[in-house]
Amino acid sequence: MKFCSECGAPTELRQPQGDNRIRHVCSACSTVHYQNPKLVVGAIPEWEDGRILLCLRAIEPRYGYWTLPAGFMENGETVAEAAARETLEEANARVEINELYSFYNLAFTSHVHLLFRARLLDIDFSPGEESLEVRLFAEHEIPWEDMAFRTVRHTLQRYFAERKQGKFSFSIIDFLPPEPH
Amino acid sequence: MKFCSECGAPTELRQPQGDNRIRHVCSACSTVHYQNPKLVVGAIPEWEDGRILLCLRAIEPRYGYWTLPAGFMENGETVAEAAARETLEEANARVEINELYSFYNLAFTSHVHLLFRARLLDIDFSPGEESLEVRLFAEHEIPWEDMAFRTVRHTLQRYFAERKQGKFSFSIIDFLPPEPH
Repeated sequence: MKFCSECGAPTELRQPQGDNRIRHVCSACSTVHYQNPKLVVGAIPEWEDGRILLCLRAIEPRYGYWTLPAGFMENGETVAEAAARETLEEANARVEINELYSFYNLAFTSHVHLLFRARLLDIDFSPGEESLEVRLFAEHEIPWEDMAFRTVRHTLQRYFAERKQGKFSFSIIDFLPPEPH
Repeated sequence: MKFCSECGAPTELRQPQGDNRIRHVCSACSTVHYQNPKLVVGAIPEWEDGRILLCLRAIEPRYGYWTLPAGFMENGETVAEAAARETLEEANARVEINELYSFYNLAFTSHVHLLFRARLLDIDFSPGEESLEVRLFAEHEIPWEDMAFRTVRHTLQRYFAERKQGKFSFSIIDFLPPEPH
């Protein structure tokens, strides 16, 4: 942030009165511009034969890698609505959103990732604009080495293990930054 | 938003290419300025005798009404860290953050409220800058008519009822806009 979105004057980094953090503050109108974590919300769409719907990403980051349908939550929606909308946009797929399954803190990017269990309602899916391909995978078919994100791989591993046990558990998980290669 | 925070030129409302929503877009550098929901995170601090810590608000909105310690999540922290920080800032109180208890969608304000069960570690608390008073309340002492927010009242009612049953349950609740008076 370099300019005030309210008046267009340059902003500066300083600690506003009564605050304990450095913020972007307008040098002219003194508006404080807070920056807050973002919610990324998605679904684990399961078809009636147990297969899971994955999308091959057509956009960066992680172009050409597989992911669960997910994306930034928009203003004016609930988290379940966001998960259903992302599944519709990325896979043209209709789901019933069930329990919240995984909750990831990625403090190093100021993101919170939420993934819901979901029931795929039909198999008339197709790639949305942000996907190259969309298909159903049985557990032994999952392309583990080509997953786009750690949160997606971690959730799917947990999901298949817990499904075998017959009991899903909600979990909040803190991720640290990835190890450098 | 009236001006681009990257270059200072006026923004306009339009649908960027490949998007399906109206966004604030810079008329000069074409930067798209997304606006996303905010997370409000707090704690239900319980002392060893079962009383709950509440704060009397010294700020708007809802100056002079009681609330659980909670506030906007900051960049670079986890949700549990946010809940502990807010409790420290508003009540100078130290807590151990336990399970996530309530998850509220307030789509009409684009807020998500999260409240954690928490164990108050000592009773050396005092009002922080945003509180007029901080005190412990037994269930029959809770000032139900003077609660600052519906989410806090709803959570405390559920909390006391479930505590009597000996079992707490995580729940996602969608709130509609309040009825006009």
